[in-house]
Parts: sequence; C-alpha cells; structure tokens
Amino acid sequence: MFIELDGEGPRYAQLARGLKKAIQRGQLKAGSRLPATRTLAADLQLSRNTVLAAYETLCAERLALPMKGSGTYVAAEAPAAPLAPAAPGFPAQTRFAARLRALPRLALPVGQRRARYDLRYGESLIHPLLPGAWRRAMARATAADHWPHPLVAGLPALRRGIADYLARRRGVVCHADDVVVVGGAQQAVSLLARILLDEGDPVAVEDPGYPLAVHALLAHGAKLVPIPVDRDGLRIGDLAGRPIRAVYVTPSHQFPSGAVMSVERRQALLEHARAEGCWVLEDDYDGEFRHDASSIPALRSLDESGRVVYIGTFSKALFPGLRLGYVVCPPALRGDLLLAKRCDDLACSVMEQAALAELMADGGFDRHLRRVAGELRRRRRALLEGLRRHCARHLQWQDSRAGMHVVAWLDGWSSQALQALVDLALERHLGIHPIGPHYLAAPARPGLLLGYAGLSVSQLEVATRLLGTCLADASRMQATDGEVPAVHQAPALGAVATSNRHEPRRSPPLTRRASSRRRAT
Amino acid sequence: MFIELDGEGPRYAQLARGLKKAIQRGQLKAGSRLPATRTLAADLQLSRNTVLAAYETLCAERLALPMKGSGTYVAAEAPAAPLAPAAPGFPAQTRFAARLRALPRLALPVGQRRARYDLRYGESLIHPLLPGAWRRAMARATAADHWPHPLVAGLPALRRGIADYLARRRGVVCHADDVVVVGGAQQAVSLLARILLDEGDPVAVEDPGYPLAVHALLAHGAKLVPIPVDRDGLRIGDLAGRPIRAVYVTPSHQFPSGAVMSVERRQALLEHARAEGCWVLEDDYDGEFRHDASSIPALRSLDESGRVVYIGTFSKALFPGLRLGYVVCPPALRGDLLLAKRCDDLACSVMEQAALAELMADGGFDRHLRRVAGELRRRRRALLEGLRRHCARHLQWQDSRAGMHVVAWLDGWSSQALQALVDLALERHLGIHPIGPHYLAAPARPGLLLGYAGLSVSQLEVATRLLGTCLADASRMQATDGEVPAVHQAPALGAVATSNRHEPRRSPPLTRRASSRRRAT
Repeated sequence: MFIELDGEGPRYAQLARGLKKAIQRGQLKAGSRLPATRTLAADLQLSRNTVLAAYETLCAERLALPMKGSGTYVAAEAPAAPLAPAAPGFPAQTRFAARLRALPRLALPVGQRRARYDLRYGESLIHPLLPGAWRRAMARATAADHWPHPLVAGLPALRRGIADYLARRRGVVCHADDVVVVGGAQQAVSLLARILLDEGDPVAVEDPGYPLAVHALLAHGAKLVPIPVDRDGLRIGDLAGRPIRAVYVTPSHQFPSGAVMSVERRQALLEHARAEGCWVLEDDYDGEFRHDASSIPALRSLDESGRVVYIGTFSKALFPGLRLGYVVCPPALRGDLLLAKRCDDLACSVMEQAALAELMADGGFDRHLRRVAGELRRRRRALLEGLRRHCARHLQWQDSRAGMHVVAWLDGWSSQALQALVDLALERHLGIHPIGPHYLAAPARPGLLLGYAGLSVSQLEVATRLLGTCLADASRMQATDGEVPAVHQAPALGAVATSNRHEPRRSPPLTRRASSRRRAT
Repeated sequence: MFIELDGEGPRYAQLARGLKKAIQRGQLKAGSRLPATRTLAADLQLSRNTVLAAYETLCAERLALPMKGSGTYVAAEAPAAPLAPAAPGFPAQTRFAARLRALPRLALPVGQRRARYDLRYGESLIHPLLPGAWRRAMARATAADHWPHPLVAGLPALRRGIADYLARRRGVVCHADDVVVVGGAQQAVSLLARILLDEGDPVAVEDPGYPLAVHALLAHGAKLVPIPVDRDGLRIGDLAGRPIRAVYVTPSHQFPSGAVMSVERRQALLEHARAEGCWVLEDDYDGEFRHDASSIPALRSLDESGRVVYIGTFSKALFPGLRLGYVVCPPALRGDLLLAKRCDDLACSVMEQAALAELMADGGFDRHLRRVAGELRRRRRALLEGLRRHCARHLQWQDSRAGMHVVAWLDGWSSQALQALVDLALERHLGIHPIGPHYLAAPARPGLLLGYAGLSVSQLEVATRLLGTCLADASRMQATDGEVPAVHQAPALGAVATSNRHEPRRSPPLTRRASSRRRAT
C-alpha cells in the first residue's frame, strides 16, 4: 500500500490525510475494501492503533464505511481512476517514430477467428499432446534449485540443443557459440537491421513478401528494393546492377507465394553476396515442415564466405505465444549482435529457455515435430483433395510441399471480384484471405493464401466445399451483374494494380502496402 | 533428420550419399548413433528397406558400424563440427554498430560468485517460498486450454494487474490501457530511445548513474549530458540553460548513490520538463522496497503535463531471469511505443505474462513482496549493525531506507588504496565493489556499493567483520608502505581522477567509463 505521510502532526492524522488523498486520486477505488489494519500497520511500520484511528477519521468524514465483520470500505461515491485520453495529432518525436507512423497498415487478425472456418495463415497447429509436454518441461525447468541469471547469448543448454537440431534436421552445421537466442524472428530482423543498415541503405526484399520483416527494415530507415518472386523464388538476376547492403529472403518456403528457391538460384544468390559483399538474411521460418523427402539445403549450409545470417523461430513449431527464436551468426557479426541484444533487452527470459532446452534434450521436441508434421500432411491432403473436388474450375494452385499454407491463384479475377468473393465467403462463415496486400511494387497477381494448420481434416472438407460454392456463386453474380464472368476476364496485371488504387477502402493500394495477414514468427 | 537426396539413381544410393555428406560435414557427429531405420524412413517418406540398404552401404564403406541390438553408429574417426573462429578487426557495418563497439566496457559478474561472501549489487533475494509459488502460477497458466496469441501491449489481465498494483503500492494512478508490457527495464529504455531521440540529441543522465541505461542511450546516438547527484538526488538546477530532449532518472533510490530525490527536486524537475517540453524517463527500479513509512510519490503521480514515462521491472521483485517489465506511457507516446515494440519483437512471451497475472490476481505477488521486504529489512539491519560495529572508523554510509544496497564512502582514500582493499578482501573471500566505475564526468567519490540482498543475516555478520579487518589492514599496509595512512589522506577529487587514468588495468578511467557491477533490471 503506497500512502504518503506528510510528517505533520500525529501519525494517525498523517495516515488519514494520506488515505484521503489516495481516495480522491482514485488510487483507492470507490467501493473497494481498505487493507486489513494489521497488514497496513506492518507495511507502513506503524502501530495497529494508529491505523485504526486513521480509519475512524475516514469513516467520520464519510469517505469510508465500516462493514460488520468484513473490514472498512471506501465510500461508493469516491471518484474512479480517469481513463487516459488518446493523443491524435501529437508530432512524432524522432525520424524513427515518423517512419513507424508511415508504415503500411497491418491488420493483425489476433484473437478469435472472424469466421467459423478460417483458412487464414498464421494459425498454429497446437497438437493435443503439446500442452502436457510443455507443462512438464516447464515444471522441470522451474524445479531446478539454481535459478540462473540470464545470459545475453542465451542459455548454453539451449544453444547446444539448437546447434544439434539444426545439424540433424536442417543441414546447418554450426557450433553452439554461433547461436544467439533472441525473442523470435522479429527481434532477429530488428537487431540485424541495427547492426547492418544505416538510414537510407538499400535492402532487397521479396515481392510479394513478409510484411513484418519489411516493417522492421523500413522502421530502421532502409530503402526497400523489391525484387519479384517466381516459382523458383527470388529472381536473383534482377539484383544485377542494383547495389544493396543486404537481402532478406525466405528460401525454404517463400512467404507468401510458397515458392521453394531452386538450387541454382541459391548458388547465384551466394555468389552475388560474395562478389558484392552484401549480407543475406535467411529467414527459415517454415523449414521444419517439408512434406516430402526432397529437401534443399539451407543457404547457410552452402555459404562459404560467411555472408549468410540464418534466422529461425520456435513460435511456428511450438506455439505463437512462445517468443523465442535464434540467429546463427557469421563470426564477423557475432560481437555486434550480442552487444545489440544486450542493449535491447539484456537477454531472453531464462525459464522458457530452460524448458525448451529440456524438451530438445530428451527428444520431446523431435517427437512433437514428427507428430505435427504428420498431422500437417493429413490436413494438407484434405485441403488439396477438397480443392481438387470443389474448386478446380476456378483455382490454380501450386503445391510447394512445405509449410502450413498453399497459394491458389485466381488469374483473371479483378480485385472487385476477389473482394466480392471474400465478402460472400465471410457471410457463409468461411474466412479466406487474398495474397494481394503482400505485394509491394510488383502488380498483384490475384490469389488466395490458404492456411491449413488451424483447421482439422473434417473442417477442411467443409471449408473447401464452402469455398467451391462461393467461387461458383461469386463468378455467377458477376455475370448476372452484366459483367464478363470473372473466370473469363483477363485484364493486364498492371490494370488490376491501377484499379486497386482507386479503391483504397475495399482493397488497399499495392505500393508499399503490406499484409493484412499475419505470420507468427 | 535433414538429408539431401540428389535425385540420381536408386533411392538407397541417394540416401547413402546424403548420409555420407552429412558425416563428412560433421552434421552427423563421430561416434553418434544413426537414427532408427523406422524413424528415418518415416521422416523421409521412404521404405524401411531403402534405409536399411543405405546403412549397409555406409557400413561397407566403414563410415558407419553396426552394433548388435543397439543400431548403427557413425565411425569414430569422422570429422567433428568446426569451431567458428572469432572475427577481430572486422569493420562495424553501421553507425549504430560502431557506437556499440565504443561503449564503455561493462564487466557483468554473471554466474557464480567470485567470493564466498560477495556484497555485490544485483543479487536477488530468492525467497524460499518463491519457486513453489511461481511453479504453481506457471502450472495454472500453462493449463489454460486456450493458448492465446501474443498481444503487442501485453496480456490484458497482466496490464490490469500492473495498473492495480501501481495504484495500491506506488501511488501511480493509471489505467490498464496506459500500461505496455516490455521485456524488462532495458527494453523500455531502448524502445523509448528510438521514439524520443534522434542521433545527436542531448539527454541528461545522473552522474554517477546506471550503466546499462547509459549504454542504450549512447547506442542510439544520444549526446550524454551528465548531471551530478547529491544527497537529494539529481541536481535539477544544473539542467538550467542546457537544452535537453529527455532526462533519465531513478528518483526512488538513485542508482548507485542511494539518494532519494526530495519532493522539492521532484517538483522542480517536473516544472523544468513542462517548461522546456522535454521528457522524463522515471526508472522506478527499486520502488517496491522502501524500508520505512515515509514514501515519496513517484514523479509520474505528480506529473500533470504528461511528460513523465514511468518504467518498472519485475526482475528485481521476483528473479533476474524473468525478463518482464512495463512502461506507463503518456497518451502522446503510446501509439509510437506500441509500433516500436511490434517492430522490435512483436510482443512478450505469453505464458510468463499469464503466470505473473495469476500471481498478481490471487494476492501471491503482494504476499511475496511483503516477505521479501521483511527479509530485506532484516538483512539491511544486519549489514548496518555490522558496519557500525566493525567498520565505523573507516566508512561513512548514508542510509536511504530503500532498495537492496547501501553506499559506504571512503572519503580520502586514493584509488590505489581502494583497489588494494578490494584485492585484499577478495583474498579473504569477501567481494566488495567500488562505486567509482559508475561515474561518467564528475570526479569519482571513493566508496563501496554494498549489496545485502544476496547474503543471509549470518553471512552478513561474517562479511562485515571481514570487511572491518580488511579496512584496518589495508589502511595499515599503506602506512607501512611509507604512505600517509589512507584514512588521513585527502587529495583533491580531481587528482584521484587523474591518477586513475594512468592505471587503466587496475582501476578504469572515469570518463565515459561505466559500471563493473550489474543491476538486474
């Protein structure tokens, strides 16, 4: 209990004045119970009689009421704590803050689903066995009699576990010393932006791309150089003649297009980085979940010039509320990265690191990944089977055999038609999400991001059937509206982009406009 | 298991080549067990016979060995993973990185104690009842069937708990919406630096002061304006005529001097902030632990112009491995702070927030604070009693009745004499820590930072007795060395600073040289 004693006159009167002030300021809320006299006396190191006398004074002034057998209460008409007003129009105090405010809007669909069947990307598959496994690991971690101080680079046991895991599962051979534990992939990108980019430095990013990484780069003043993505990933050739300091890529499973970067592109990118002396930020956000045997080695595992910074996260493999990830850092940058991490937040929380290290050491993490991968394969099959059965007339999809989502293209659909489809689906309890808002400079190709991690096999069967009827009805609606049926309509992509710009509310403009979808990293 | 299949020839041969490569690159370690054939087959979606055939090929090439009944092992002579070399001399890539490298050295005494009786500051009092209480709260938090997505501003239940706690215990009346949960006080300062300071902006800091906050400010390019501290805290008058963007203060218990800012100074500081339009970062790092009734209201609770940003942390009240803190943010800055937090790491981990919210809601946090405060009082009494009994001839201390440490001054001691005392004490298993390295520009006043949270009452009795004999012997040693006995020696403070500069190894130079002690925030 925080009470000011002003030091004037008898103690009980000081305390009564202090309590009165606390009531008037809303610190003690109307109708709430005053602390037990014994407790308050101990807190303030006063005698209990002093406290009793002060309470009596308050009651005499009708600021408090004694209740038989249950203590003393603040009178009901005392003022409540004021609601803090918002502050629109207050000027940004720094260039950083001004850039934050200028970031493209990001509608994060946090919290409950908007639709009963929501195919949104970013949902995790929380396997029914995970909560128990995590609880046990956490119990072991908190039972340890030595509660360690946090270390900047992370808990040694966890760094060893990560190095071991990366060698076994991702082909990335590194030493525990190369691993720096961070608070998720987002913090990795932010820290790296600070040690690799000055304001105005050009950075290549995938287009379409992952909006939250783009935000971190823009906030730090990077000049974005959007590079188109095709079915083999980032078009490395487009980098030629464009001096850049760094390139941010998701080669394992490009977000959002789903493309897997070909081996030739990987080699070309590494050669470019070596020759030009630029940095490659490899975000392997989905690398755990390949759904066939044909794995392609991570850029980091092919890198011989120490130019690749490898970024991984646990929030996709475990659960989004776990803010832990890691950076496998080239030796040249390690010292700077550690200094930047220490300046930022000293270190990550120790207990969760310890629980994760336990889970990695006893094989529980591998077992969990196997279970999730098996279930993801079943869900993916259900989605693809449903698409084949119900949606093949309107959708063309491309199966990257990785990750937690599939992109289905609606070539020829106008942005209006696409938005009508989304609205119609939502009316019918189906959530679908266009890929359009993820494009930066390139004209958006109309399509949907279909996440399958958050729905069960039977839910996916319903969802795809619903999607089929929505597609049919949306394209019919257009035809009866006197328009060319959507499926036959094929304007130039540039025209789609232009028409979008005239409809900012329904479909956001494409330039510098990032996602309305979230990828929990 | 990550294995590259190159797609040429039969599957078993592809797998054998992939495994061979993994062994050669150190991905599969010498002497380690190969995965069970069934597991690998499931992982790679191959038949078990294919895996068996591949293992046989490896054994035939002596790269692996079959062990009866326990599987197949990588041969012992396979190469191990290379240790990554350090990279000295690699140029900093950004101005931020260059500033990180130029930060004053910070010797963090992380890990085990250097001495059996270590009076260092930054140790937590882990009350014996805390691990159980935390474990139960964590179990309840992880048992909840809904594992929520992280929210940028923090878990609503925790924000409500913090607002309620601040009103009751710190006199800071705010709404849950004003509270932003961050990863400790360090992240609070870093985020605020980004939204309040451009490179080159002048910021006033306490001298002596808290080194890690100073680091965050310097890293962001702030121009430090060190302001001396006296027994009433920051000398507000010294701010006059020095245009600053912000001032960082620890008014409840100035770190490291222990001064409590007087009410007059507080009002003068708020008036200065209002008149000059500068920001006040109030770090209330020790505010929970006042050891008498005479609390002084937080700056935030007196602020009427919305210029005070209040920073708090749980790592001192609970344990240092818990990286959770909060900012009570003026409305004008709240939007920018949330954007900066999202860019930095999306949000804090959810489970620990939920556990803490549980602990705050069921009264466990208050009970814990009361227990710790009681024990801290006992330890403080033991320290002060020991100092009175054994050290009064040499030390002058100032009892601020708050926090977890006391400063004892050794006025007149040279830095050499002080260092000799520290060395002698360490030989006798006593860890003591000079305040000198915490000074920035002001000449260092010789003194010791005596932390009492990490030692029990009986340990403190031994420690103070040891300190008494060390003080006596160190001052006698000096006398027999032909020098004036330390206790009578009184050079100008400026001279002490100069002599320090010639002994960088034993006692670091004073300018821009921060702490060798840590304050877990």
